[in-house]
Order: sequence, then structure tokens, then C-alpha cells
Amino acid sequence: MMLEALREEVLEANLELVRRGLVLYTFGNASGIARESGLVVIKPSGVPYERMAASDLVITDMDGRVVEGDLKPSSDLATHLALYRAFDEIGGVVHTHSTHATSWAQACREIPCLGTTHADYFHGAIPVTEAMEAGDIESEYEWNTGQAIVRCLDGRDPLDMRAVLVAGHGPFCWGDSASDAAHVAVVLEEVARMALSAMAINVGVTPISDALRDKHFMRKRGPGAYYGQK
Amino acid sequence: MMLEALREEVLEANLELVRRGLVLYTFGNASGIARESGLVVIKPSGVPYERMAASDLVITDMDGRVVEGDLKPSSDLATHLALYRAFDEIGGVVHTHSTHATSWAQACREIPCLGTTHADYFHGAIPVTEAMEAGDIESEYEWNTGQAIVRCLDGRDPLDMRAVLVAGHGPFCWGDSASDAAHVAVVLEEVARMALSAMAINVGVTPISDALRDKHFMRKRGPGAYYGQK
Amino acid sequence: MMLEALREEVLEANLELVRRGLVLYTFGNASGIARESGLVVIKPSGVPYERMAASDLVITDMDGRVVEGDLKPSSDLATHLALYRAFDEIGGVVHTHSTHATSWAQACREIPCLGTTHADYFHGAIPVTEAMEAGDIESEYEWNTGQAIVRCLDGRDPLDMRAVLVAGHGPFCWGDSASDAAHVAVVLEEVARMALSAMAINVGVTPISDALRDKHFMRKRGPGAYYGQK
Amino acid sequence: MMLEALREEVLEANLELVRRGLVLYTFGNASGIARESGLVVIKPSGVPYERMAASDLVITDMDGRVVEGDLKPSSDLATHLALYRAFDEIGGVVHTHSTHATSWAQACREIPCLGTTHADYFHGAIPVTEAMEAGDIESEYEWNTGQAIVRCLDGRDPLDMRAVLVAGHGPFCWGDSASDAAHVAVVLEEVARMALSAMAINVGVTPISDALRDKHFMRKRGPGAYYGQK
Repeated sequence: MMLEALREEVLEANLELVRRGLVLYTFGNASGIARESGLVVIKPSGVPYERMAASDLVITDMDGRVVEGDLKPSSDLATHLALYRAFDEIGGVVHTHSTHATSWAQACREIPCLGTTHADYFHGAIPVTEAMEAGDIESEYEWNTGQAIVRCLDGRDPLDMRAVLVAGHGPFCWGDSASDAAHVAVVLEEVARMALSAMAINVGVTPISDALRDKHFMRKRGPGAYYGQK
Repeated sequence: MMLEALREEVLEANLELVRRGLVLYTFGNASGIARESGLVVIKPSGVPYERMAASDLVITDMDGRVVEGDLKPSSDLATHLALYRAFDEIGGVVHTHSTHATSWAQACREIPCLGTTHADYFHGAIPVTEAMEAGDIESEYEWNTGQAIVRCLDGRDPLDMRAVLVAGHGPFCWGDSASDAAHVAVVLEEVARMALSAMAINVGVTPISDALRDKHFMRKRGPGAYYGQK
Repeated sequence: MMLEALREEVLEANLELVRRGLVLYTFGNASGIARESGLVVIKPSGVPYERMAASDLVITDMDGRVVEGDLKPSSDLATHLALYRAFDEIGGVVHTHSTHATSWAQACREIPCLGTTHADYFHGAIPVTEAMEAGDIESEYEWNTGQAIVRCLDGRDPLDMRAVLVAGHGPFCWGDSASDAAHVAVVLEEVARMALSAMAINVGVTPISDALRDKHFMRKRGPGAYYGQK
Repeated sequence: MMLEALREEVLEANLELVRRGLVLYTFGNASGIARESGLVVIKPSGVPYERMAASDLVITDMDGRVVEGDLKPSSDLATHLALYRAFDEIGGVVHTHSTHATSWAQACREIPCLGTTHADYFHGAIPVTEAMEAGDIESEYEWNTGQAIVRCLDGRDPLDMRAVLVAGHGPFCWGDSASDAAHVAVVLEEVARMALSAMAINVGVTPISDALRDKHFMRKRGPGAYYGQK
């Protein structure tokens, strides 16, 4: 993908977070990667979404060196880079503090797979990381956050589980592309909201059967997928 | 009803779900049936509502064969067909993953009739299906979902109870027409939301009396109905 | 007040309910009374707010006979009339099924006075009626609903307590005028929402002191009121 | 800062509260201070935000005497003045009855620091005042409210903790400027909402570690801050 197209897609992914009510002020960030060149396009740090242009986005290499752009990259850049390094399959990363997904992260609880909305996107419970050690916070914090996410995924296919909750912090999501990652972040917020309500209705609620979970996940993502066009 | 008019009505019913905040991205679907010809107009699968035109809708016969349209029909088509076959009285079907109705479905709990908002539209608790067997999920899943709904209604007049919650999934609604079904889906979401809040306020809340339930249901739908004009 | 001006004010009060998200479809209704002529202007039954014009409003006398207008008045007219007859001080009545106030009504619980937002408008807990007897439901239901509200107020000054929750149904509010009643309905919804959240945070939450309640109520409504201009 | 610029900033801070859904009708108020002249610009009492112009704002001295403006200042003026007198570092004050922050105030519970969204802005739990004594309510109520806030902060740097919940009432926030105070009020509302949800998910939720709290607070506000541009 040409860098200009990637730049536009990453801008659009960032703006999608605003349109869907996932971010407040300068919270959150989206990035995308051009795998052939190893370049990452990411939101600048602390810039209001309302006046963000494609030209404000920052381009870095996979070591976080700025290659293009006058602004500082998102302070969460190192977390994005850790994910791009660990997960070859992914093309975009999104981080938000969206209300309900963040509430689960703060509660240090995985989001159980209570319904087909969840299973349409995520193959099982959304995992939550362990609390980070003081040492990992004090130095290389953002990079270590990425490592905590990678450990939490524990070798699973990152496209089967496109989100992890960072304990006491909030969700990181990813996908085929920046726009896919943003889409996942939006659905995660809704899944988190419904899981909270379902538990409030029935404290003993249990996950759906493996059969139902697999059916819905595969209907959209498996080799025999039949949801959508073509 | 002419097919073109039905096409417009079904488009409008789909868009009503967006306007009322019941659907995210491509979630949900509405259909309508022309009983004289046995043709069903339904939303195409996985197409964003924002760019959906009446001409994108798909027309099928009651066996699900596409009669008109270039796109694939909603993957939930077979559920709609099962309902049209079982319930002669209905003219439209709507399925959503709306937040609160879906939360009740995920909690596998019927929505008790706690107030007159509920009773104005639904004659008693909104039932929830049994969890589906693995075999019914693996093969003919969408058709079997429809059968689970029909079993759950247990011979009742489908116009007395125009909604069922599919356990671990979400609500299916129906009515005289596609627009009526969409209207029911919107009210169901609000009823589901208020029932959750009422239970949070008073965990021992009980349904309203049969007399109050019947009064409100009949005021709008019974032979002596006196709500509305004419 | 001239009837035309009252008609405009009642239309505006009805539309305020829509703007503030208190009503869905044709739910709810607002009316106003011209005390000198004993004429009541009220929303027509079952007409969507979006296409309601001042000329659609219905004018009745205090026995509910239509004096002007081609449409049927709100089916809740008799409840409004019962309140106008019992409470000489009031000039407007509003009924909604707003989410949180209705949830308290469905929970059959009064809303305790937990904060100054509440006390700024209501002098103490918002009372809830007793459940209605079957006989009172079967015949003259709407009039009897009004009587239940009047009994529930138990001789208090209706301008000290401008709302009652009808058990299993929803709130009725009133005030100096139709616009005042609509304003009260909007604030009641917010007060109901905050009381639910406060209880969720602290199940043992207690009402504010009488001193604080009186201070805030009097700051806005008492003889020494000093809130607002002039 | 020139008074005209301050006037514009205070207007903008008031309007920000509306845009973010923190205020209903005439609830809430924002002010700013010109420290060199000791003049305070504040919202007028009970004027709807929709028709508020910069020229409607009231300018007073630090004893509350109106220096400029035809309208009465906010009835909470004395609380603002108490905060300006006690906290030399601050340039703006905002008071709201925003839904979730007010719910915590009504519950008389401090908001624990459950996540990094919280820690990005507030260094620890948001404290709640003691209930006010009847004597402090009956006379000089608004001034005494300010004193309760000051006592509650207990000598801490007011820029480390830019908000206090007044028990049974709602939040007061402050900051470098009126716009900073409004920004804090918006974030506080979101933090309050997420804390409630986190507790609903996990009743035994505990605050994040001191290391994580300090890391995030310092990342934005400390001497080595690296969030944002420049």
C-alpha cells in the first residue's frame, strides 16, 4: 500500500473513534503499518481530533524513529510497535479508553463470551493482562505494556482474538488494517457494555456453548464464511 | 401491496433501526412479505446502512431462492422465512442486536412485564428461547433458530407477543408489516432498558397486575381500542 | 392568557419532551389550562411529534368535551383533568414514560432526596402511588389514575411536590404552566437517573439533611429566593 | 490576560459544559480570574446557555461586588471566590451537576483511582467533603461550601487534585484556567462513570498501584512530562 493511502486510512480510523463516541478530547490512537517498508503511520500525541489532518500524522520506522512529520508521535507508539513486531499478521492497531471496555480493564476481569455479537468478532473471552510490575512501569513503560499484551495472548492467532484489555488501563485492538482495528474497537465497546448489563440481569450468566461461539466466529471469519458479500 | 412499495417500506424499516440507535455497522436486518405472491424483500448481507438503496434489497421466494437483486440476502434469511411460514398473520420481521434487549437474551432471562410501556405493546413477559442443541447449530442453523422461536411462542397469537429473545443471541420481532416490526424492536429495546433499571432499584420488583396489563394492551390493540386516531 | 398563546406554549412543551429525549414515538403528553375560561389545550392521541402543529392540539372543557380541534385528545386526558380539578394552583400537566423516572415507577419505589439537584426542584422524596385496584382499572381508568395521584399527594401543596410516580406506569408532573411542567419532567428524569447510580455506588445512601434540602428548595422557590435574575 | 479575552474564555468554558452534556438547563457555572487585577468573570445566575453572550457574563471583585454587568452573578459565586482565595495557583473554577460525578457526591463516596484515565488527570482518589452542618447551611451557605472544599483538600497542591465532590451536591473543579477547569470537569464525569461500571463488574475492585498512578500523572503533568506536543 502506498504511504499516502495508508496515511488517509489511519486518519480515517482515528476519526472513526470520534464518530462512534469512543474517545474524549485527545484520548486514544490508531496506527497502520506498511509491511513492505516497515513504516508505521500513527496519530500525533495530544492533538485534538477535530483539527487533525492527514499531514499531522507521524511516520516512524519499527524502532520508533520519526521518518516523516513535524509532530511528536503518540506517547503509546512503543506499544503499537511491540504489537507489530510480535504479530506479523496484523496491519493496524487501535487503543482507546472507551467507557465500558475500560471499565472491564479497570475491574481486571476478562469479558466472557456471553453472546453471538461477541462471537461474531472474538473467538472466546477477551483476556485481561496481569498487573504490571513497578519495574516495568518505571522504565520502557509503553514497550512493556506491549509485552504484557503479547504474553496475555499466549501464542494464539492474533486474528482470532483481536483485542486485549490492559489491566487498570484499557483496551488495545488490532486487525488486518487500521480500519479493521477501529471497527473491532467499536464492537468491543458494545460487547463490553452488553456483558455488563447481562451480568446485572443474571449474576450467574454463563458463556454461550462452544458450538454457538464457533458457528458465529466461523460464519464471518472461517474458510466457509458466508456472512457479507462475495 | 406492489413490490416496489414493499421495497421502499423495507428500506425504511431498516433505516429506522439506524435512526433509533438499534444497530451498529451492518448488524440487524428487516424484511417484509407480499403474501399474495409469497415474495420476501430483505436487507442484503453485510452492507452498511448508510449506502443502502431500495435497489440493494434482495427479493426471494419462501424457499429462499433469490428472485431479484444482485447481492446476497441477509445471512438470517432462513430465520425470517421460518417465521413467515409459521405465522400467517405477520407481514414483517426485524432482527437486531440492540443493547438492552440483547443483554436480556444473553442473560437467558425473559423480560417480565413491569409496567404499562411494556403492556402497551406486549401481552405479558417477553419469552426467551431454550439454548440451541449443537446439532441444530451445526446444520441449518438459521432455519433452526426460527424453529426455536416458533416453539418458544408455543401456539400463542404472534400479534399478542411480537417478540422473542433468542438465548445468547438477541431479539427477533415481527408485526403487521416491516414498519410495525421495526417499531416493536425500538419499543422492546426501551422496555428492556427500563426493566433492567427497575430491577436494579428494587430486586424484588414484581410484574404489574393482570388487570393493568390487559387494560393497556387492549387500549391499543383490542377490539375496543381507544388509543390514537380513528 | 389568550388561547392561541396557550396553544403555542402547549405545543412547545410537547416538543421540549422530544428534544430532551423523554419520549419515544407518540409516548407522553403535555397540556395547559386557561383558568379564566376553564379550557384545556392538550396533545392529540397517537400523533407523532415530528408532524404535530399547534392546530393539531385539542381544546376541551373541564369535563373533557372537545370544544375545538378535529383530532381525538390524548387518551390520558381524564388524568390531566383530575389534576386540574384537584390542584387549583397548577397551569400545566405533563406525562412521560421517560426511562429512569419510569424505572422507579415500575420498581414501586419513591425517589429519595439524595442531593441538591433534587432539592432544587422537589421538596422531599418523589412519592409513588399505591397499585390501583382492578375495579379502578376496568372503569374510568384514566380518571382513577388522577385520583390515585391526588391521594398520593395527600393534601400537600402541589407546587412543593410537582411530580408523582404512578406505580407500574410512569411519572406525572405539573407546574405553574405547561412549560414549567415540561421543565420539571426533564429534571425529574435526571434526578431519577442519578438516584439509581448513587444507590449502585452506595447501597446504604441516605437522604440529605432537612437543612440542605430546605436551603436549596427555598433558594429557588421560597419567598427569599435568590437564584436566577430578578 | 486582558479582561475581554478572559470574558471570551469563560464564555467558551461555560459552553463546553453544554457541548459535552454536563449541564441541563441553567445548571452549572464556570468562572475565571485575572490575578493581576483580582477580578473574576462568572456566568450570570439562571440564564440559559443557548442565549448567553460574552456580554452577559458578570465581573466581580474578590469580595463578590459586581464591577461590570447588568445581570446577577451565579448564586455559587461565593464558592468560587473561596477557592480563588485559598488556591493561589488556580485560574478557573467550574461547578456542574454532571450525572455520574454527582451520583458519587450523592453517595458520599470518594472516587477511587481505578485506572490510568483517572491517573492521567488526578493524583489519587477524588475526595468527597463531609456533610455540612446546619449552621453552615443556614448562613453564608455558598462561602461555607467553598470552605468545606478547602478543608477536604487538606493542604494538598490544588493542581495535583483539581476536583472535590461536595457531599449530597456535586463536583467543583478547577485548573490553570477556566478552560482547563472545564476540561477537568468533562474528564471527571467520564472517570466517575467508568468507576461505577468497574465496581458493578467487580465489587472487590482495587485501585491501581502507586507506580502506575504516578507514571500516568507525571507523564502528563510532571517535570519530565512527555505527553502532547512541545
